[in-house]
Amino acid sequence: MPIITLTTDFGYRDGFVGTVKGVILGIVPDVQLVDLTHSISPQNIMEGAMVLWRAAPFFPPGTVHLAVVDPGVGTLRRPLAASIGYQFFVGPDNGLFTPLMEEAEKRGEDSIFINVNNPKYFLPKVSYTFHGRDIFGPVAAHLAKGVKLEVLGDRIMDPVRIKIPKPEITTEGWIAHITVVDVFGNLTTDLPAKDVTDRGKVEFKISGKTVHGLVESYGIKHPGDLIALVDSEDFIELAVVNGSAAQTLNAKVGDHVVVKKRT
Amino acid sequence: MPIITLTTDFGYRDGFVGTVKGVILGIVPDVQLVDLTHSISPQNIMEGAMVLWRAAPFFPPGTVHLAVVDPGVGTLRRPLAASIGYQFFVGPDNGLFTPLMEEAEKRGEDSIFINVNNPKYFLPKVSYTFHGRDIFGPVAAHLAKGVKLEVLGDRIMDPVRIKIPKPEITTEGWIAHITVVDVFGNLTTDLPAKDVTDRGKVEFKISGKTVHGLVESYGIKHPGDLIALVDSEDFIELAVVNGSAAQTLNAKVGDHVVVKKRT
Amino acid sequence: MPIITLTTDFGYRDGFVGTVKGVILGIVPDVQLVDLTHSISPQNIMEGAMVLWRAAPFFPPGTVHLAVVDPGVGTLRRPLAASIGYQFFVGPDNGLFTPLMEEAEKRGEDSIFINVNNPKYFLPKVSYTFHGRDIFGPVAAHLAKGVKLEVLGDRIMDPVRIKIPKPEITTEGWIAHITVVDVFGNLTTDLPAKDVTDRGKVEFKISGKTVHGLVESYGIKHPGDLIALVDSEDFIELAVVNGSAAQTLNAKVGDHVVVKKRT
Repeated sequence: MPIITLTTDFGYRDGFVGTVKGVILGIVPDVQLVDLTHSISPQNIMEGAMVLWRAAPFFPPGTVHLAVVDPGVGTLRRPLAASIGYQFFVGPDNGLFTPLMEEAEKRGEDSIFINVNNPKYFLPKVSYTFHGRDIFGPVAAHLAKGVKLEVLGDRIMDPVRIKIPKPEITTEGWIAHITVVDVFGNLTTDLPAKDVTDRGKVEFKISGKTVHGLVESYGIKHPGDLIALVDSEDFIELAVVNGSAAQTLNAKVGDHVVVKKRT
Repeated sequence: MPIITLTTDFGYRDGFVGTVKGVILGIVPDVQLVDLTHSISPQNIMEGAMVLWRAAPFFPPGTVHLAVVDPGVGTLRRPLAASIGYQFFVGPDNGLFTPLMEEAEKRGEDSIFINVNNPKYFLPKVSYTFHGRDIFGPVAAHLAKGVKLEVLGDRIMDPVRIKIPKPEITTEGWIAHITVVDVFGNLTTDLPAKDVTDRGKVEFKISGKTVHGLVESYGIKHPGDLIALVDSEDFIELAVVNGSAAQTLNAKVGDHVVVKKRT
Repeated sequence: MPIITLTTDFGYRDGFVGTVKGVILGIVPDVQLVDLTHSISPQNIMEGAMVLWRAAPFFPPGTVHLAVVDPGVGTLRRPLAASIGYQFFVGPDNGLFTPLMEEAEKRGEDSIFINVNNPKYFLPKVSYTFHGRDIFGPVAAHLAKGVKLEVLGDRIMDPVRIKIPKPEITTEGWIAHITVVDVFGNLTTDLPAKDVTDRGKVEFKISGKTVHGLVESYGIKHPGDLIALVDSEDFIELAVVNGSAAQTLNAKVGDHVVVKKRT
């Protein structure tokens, strides 16, 4: 069965996601529908981009990722379909797929971007306010069914990109940024773990607290300890063992972490 | 694969929905299970009815919609199975399907309603408190498997109906009512867009604010503007561009919107 | 199609659950994935155990239940796979499956427990912080695909158990404990209904209030009444008709209910 994942800011209460799935199943009945999340903060493109970036690589080749975080619905923003790294992506052309595009570029892979302007693959009637149902859902379904990317519209070379946070290099190390605060209150940063070569000789300052060195896992220290470790995507993460670093430090996405390589 | 959708007030925390799905899969293993929502306010039949009414038409013919918002569980209220507009509906007979019934009537279609009293299609042991698991889930599964509606029980002509809000006609226009407050804080009303014939010459008053004219889409005005537009089901909606009209206006379901046709 | 259920404390926001499903679908594409809940309080093993215990028996034989509530991730706690009562269970060896094990023992059935130490069935790279993705998800997928339990690792006889609450016997009856507070605010206790032989002659004291006798269902009394009844798993439950007993009584999991058999 083909796979379609769904990432939106539609929430779980109103039935919007179910409606999109109904449209999809009318086009491709035998499909695996997988929710990544529908709890993206309303119209927060960066948040949607981070979830997709973390989850998509664990899906099989050929998976279609449908993402609708769409502050520009009803404007002239383009609907986008893309082939990136053996998978397909469908959503508004507003930068949702930037981290995955950039990683494909780093790997030297060519991606294909289509301005989806062939209404043959939309619902017959397109509203001004619900393109997830009327455009993106049907297009994702047709891709999952085997329709070729190229027939969906015109190829473009300039998909919209958002600025992905990167650590700033300082004389002593880096200023890193918190990129994700997860449900456990763990704080992921934009500092790749591989950049930290001496894991005993590094310190992290955030909200007036200092963490010395990296540990391997939550289980190494004691409950309540603030620790730094390598997260499941190989970035530096700050965590409180069996607790919430976000609460302890009153931290949020975008906050700075001052990282010093000690000598 | 047949499709069963689920709409309940069971929430996402307790595993009740999973239990119902386990029962269904024991009867019809190859089925598409689609959650519409499980966040209906406890025992709020109208809220469930609105979600079903908006989502169901986008599912293929033959879909079975299972809905359990059931303040009367364990009383003499009847279990209902229905055929409305090429789809099936299963749930307590308390009005959950009223808007869909009424639309079918307007289209001149006959619906069929069954008082589900044949225990052959229930779980062997029926509790007094969890008919979603013991009655409605199994009945929906049997329908999805191909069991005929008529064998489930006796035909009835008087399914329970709830009063669906309709705009009141005034000398100057209408008093409309907010019917849905969605996750973005958009406010849907009960005023059909087709009734507003001159879209430039209309005004909407709510909570002391006035909106002049209808715009096509969120994207036409500036962030923070309060606008009126046509929603994705062709009703009048009030929204704040890239913001929440519900918060801005402190509005809730049932609130009045005074609509004036200007001359 | 084989069935895999998922029970975690991952929440619905971060995409962690979707990632695990991506890994599973890469191994076993045609599978029914059913969420039991992802709203277990962070690292609350007892809460996860109660949900599994209530839901699992309603799934068909052969179902694989994947449960990840894992305060010990990254420590030496063992990964567990088990065969209990014609179903399979995969998760950290921390007691999540205790109630189901104990019921199988009461029925005189043999369960099989495996310390999952064969990395052949893991992702190639195992992180220190996300074993749901790297170990438990893949192992559940291989089981669903038909891999034999015995090849996953070494058989063990001493899976970790947690203490399941049981009512204390008093001279007049029992001190029961609240085990679950559900989304409706209903309070399930650990007192089996079958122990209460005379349902008219029993009283329940909680938070200074007394309930006389058991009723059959919510619908028997009036909205707002505090009642005692038999829940859908045949335990004694306290509820407020069309209201929330948890709110009315300010009650929580672990609170005592003093039960008196009157003479």
